[in-house]
Amino acid sequence: MRNFVFHNPTKIIFGKNTIPGIGAETAALARKVLLVYGSGSIKANGIHRAVTASLAAAGVSWVEHGGVRSNPVLSHVHEGISLAVREKVDAVLAVGGGSVIDAAKAICAGAPADCDVWQFLRGKKGIRAALPLLCVLTLAASGSEMNGGMVITNEATRQKFGTHSGLLYPRVSILDPEATYSVPPDYSAWGAVDAISHVLEFYFTARESDVEVQNRLMEGLIAAIMAACDRVLADPRDYQGRAELMWGATLALNGLTGAGLGMVGFPMHMIEHSLSALYDVPHGAGLAVVVPGWLRWHAQQEPAKVARLGRMVFGLDEGALPVTATATIDHLRRWFAAGGCPTSLSQLGIGAADIPAIADNALGLARVWRLKEYSKERIVEILQHCQ
Amino acid sequence: MRNFVFHNPTKIIFGKNTIPGIGAETAALARKVLLVYGSGSIKANGIHRAVTASLAAAGVSWVEHGGVRSNPVLSHVHEGISLAVREKVDAVLAVGGGSVIDAAKAICAGAPADCDVWQFLRGKKGIRAALPLLCVLTLAASGSEMNGGMVITNEATRQKFGTHSGLLYPRVSILDPEATYSVPPDYSAWGAVDAISHVLEFYFTARESDVEVQNRLMEGLIAAIMAACDRVLADPRDYQGRAELMWGATLALNGLTGAGLGMVGFPMHMIEHSLSALYDVPHGAGLAVVVPGWLRWHAQQEPAKVARLGRMVFGLDEGALPVTATATIDHLRRWFAAGGCPTSLSQLGIGAADIPAIADNALGLARVWRLKEYSKERIVEILQHCQ
Repeated sequence: MRNFVFHNPTKIIFGKNTIPGIGAETAALARKVLLVYGSGSIKANGIHRAVTASLAAAGVSWVEHGGVRSNPVLSHVHEGISLAVREKVDAVLAVGGGSVIDAAKAICAGAPADCDVWQFLRGKKGIRAALPLLCVLTLAASGSEMNGGMVITNEATRQKFGTHSGLLYPRVSILDPEATYSVPPDYSAWGAVDAISHVLEFYFTARESDVEVQNRLMEGLIAAIMAACDRVLADPRDYQGRAELMWGATLALNGLTGAGLGMVGFPMHMIEHSLSALYDVPHGAGLAVVVPGWLRWHAQQEPAKVARLGRMVFGLDEGALPVTATATIDHLRRWFAAGGCPTSLSQLGIGAADIPAIADNALGLARVWRLKEYSKERIVEILQHCQ
Repeated sequence: MRNFVFHNPTKIIFGKNTIPGIGAETAALARKVLLVYGSGSIKANGIHRAVTASLAAAGVSWVEHGGVRSNPVLSHVHEGISLAVREKVDAVLAVGGGSVIDAAKAICAGAPADCDVWQFLRGKKGIRAALPLLCVLTLAASGSEMNGGMVITNEATRQKFGTHSGLLYPRVSILDPEATYSVPPDYSAWGAVDAISHVLEFYFTARESDVEVQNRLMEGLIAAIMAACDRVLADPRDYQGRAELMWGATLALNGLTGAGLGMVGFPMHMIEHSLSALYDVPHGAGLAVVVPGWLRWHAQQEPAKVARLGRMVFGLDEGALPVTATATIDHLRRWFAAGGCPTSLSQLGIGAADIPAIADNALGLARVWRLKEYSKERIVEILQHCQ
């Protein structure tokens, strides 16, 4: 077990009817906030009204910055930073899913900075100050509501990069499972795939692969997230299913799973980021394609841990490790497909001829994330497993 | 799943050679600290010297308050409060196991208070201010290094009571597994029993017993703690075993296991506290007696969850639920015994004639903890299952 620091100061307020508490939580930190949100679904489902009524009642004023897209883009972040500086807000309030929260984090980091926020995402500079962030979560997926990570797409350079800072942990995140009742089935499944893939990155790429307490926690999380997603797809208003999916996705990337594992890579995310950057594929859908392909490639080298996943989570035991590993990957891929996810590049309309360009793009992020073992040849080989 | 707030701001610094960092962490919070420790084993194993050298190098001065006993007593806490006030310390640094940390928490709460600290433990008053606390942990057991709880024994009234406050979370806890190499086998096993029993209290007494994500996490923790303890008993200097036992015990009572479960009771702890208060039994040893007895009583009413534990953690399936439940309890009791723990009142020298007095004592804590369903008759019945 490797040395680690675990320090997650985010306060999670979880449950039914918790959104009206956002005003009081915000007032403890700010008098004026930048309210960041997405396509406007929060206006259709009443969450925008509930949040602004709560802010007004608590004496907090706000400036709106809507229109964050899935795969949030740098130009829109720049507009948010300008608005935050011009309006002299004390904090940022994100109301949405991972894309909205990540855009809000980029604004938090960019507003007090004396350089362009993209320098942080390129790994060229470190974040030294950030506005405080609060969140109201509306999608179970990214875990951004309880961590210091953010991912932003630079549409000019077609690069989707991510970084992390202790200054970007939300101070408070409100998680009301009922706020996700209106998430459609495909987005619900993509969210589950995203959460599961976060766990799998730690499970398979950690330097220390035999830490039993961590392995057990990760296996339990994957099993629980899959069961919760099944409930949600059967009934979108199953409270328990929505709640377990939301909490499971939060735990999947809040630092818990990686404790003591040493360095981990995020190679599946690295490759998926190129699908999103080049084809604007939704992140979870892209992962449903990349995860089985990466696992097929990985199982050729190290079938034992893949087989363990199948044994512990799916109850599979086919005798020889490589056979059990293959059965495990098939089981997971079939579950992705049953949830309506694409599981091959061809289903995304991406052919074999496109693979070298995707690999070139991914190589840029491999350098930023220091995944030195991921050469272009290796990325091409993995993408061939995704066809 | 019930509504909950999860907010655990403790910074955990985990791993080898981390203790020399305590000076810099302390200097960020205080110029003068009260150094609280136990019987002096930290002087024998070099930890006292490492801590004080680090404090001195960081320019932090300290006043010593050693001599905390297992089952820390109120009179010694009172002395610590007087010393902290007289010496005008800015913070308290606990170097030890759960008893030392709990005594330090009581001093943190008592020093700025205008009432006796026992009023907090009796549940008569709420804690409104506390000195900041830092910890260097030397025993994997109580979880006190990452929560806001404390348990103190009033030797005058023979009451062992506990309470909780958001103000009592340690700011920083350093967990070096090598600091536990010198813990003898019996204490190591008692620590594991303590950690497992924390998980079991949530697993069996929660209002919401079917939250899959929480059940899976708890089952994984129990399995991992047992496996780690087996490694430690086979080789006291097995780093991985010591590390997993330490981190597992921390996770067992840091708020994670109880998220979303609603009200939980701590009836096994409640009854054990009376064994400690009346007979000065080490807490973990007392729990090894109470847990199997409580489970035998509980399985008569609700065998299904006990059987689930056996199925998920021990791989047991004996067909009928009550039979599997009985096998589960036997498995756990045999594991306690194999680790050298007592598993019956008679092994503690406590006879049937003593049971009514133990129940009377436990009833006092049942009232403080509002475990209304625990009548004297019920407690007697459970204790009879512990014989």
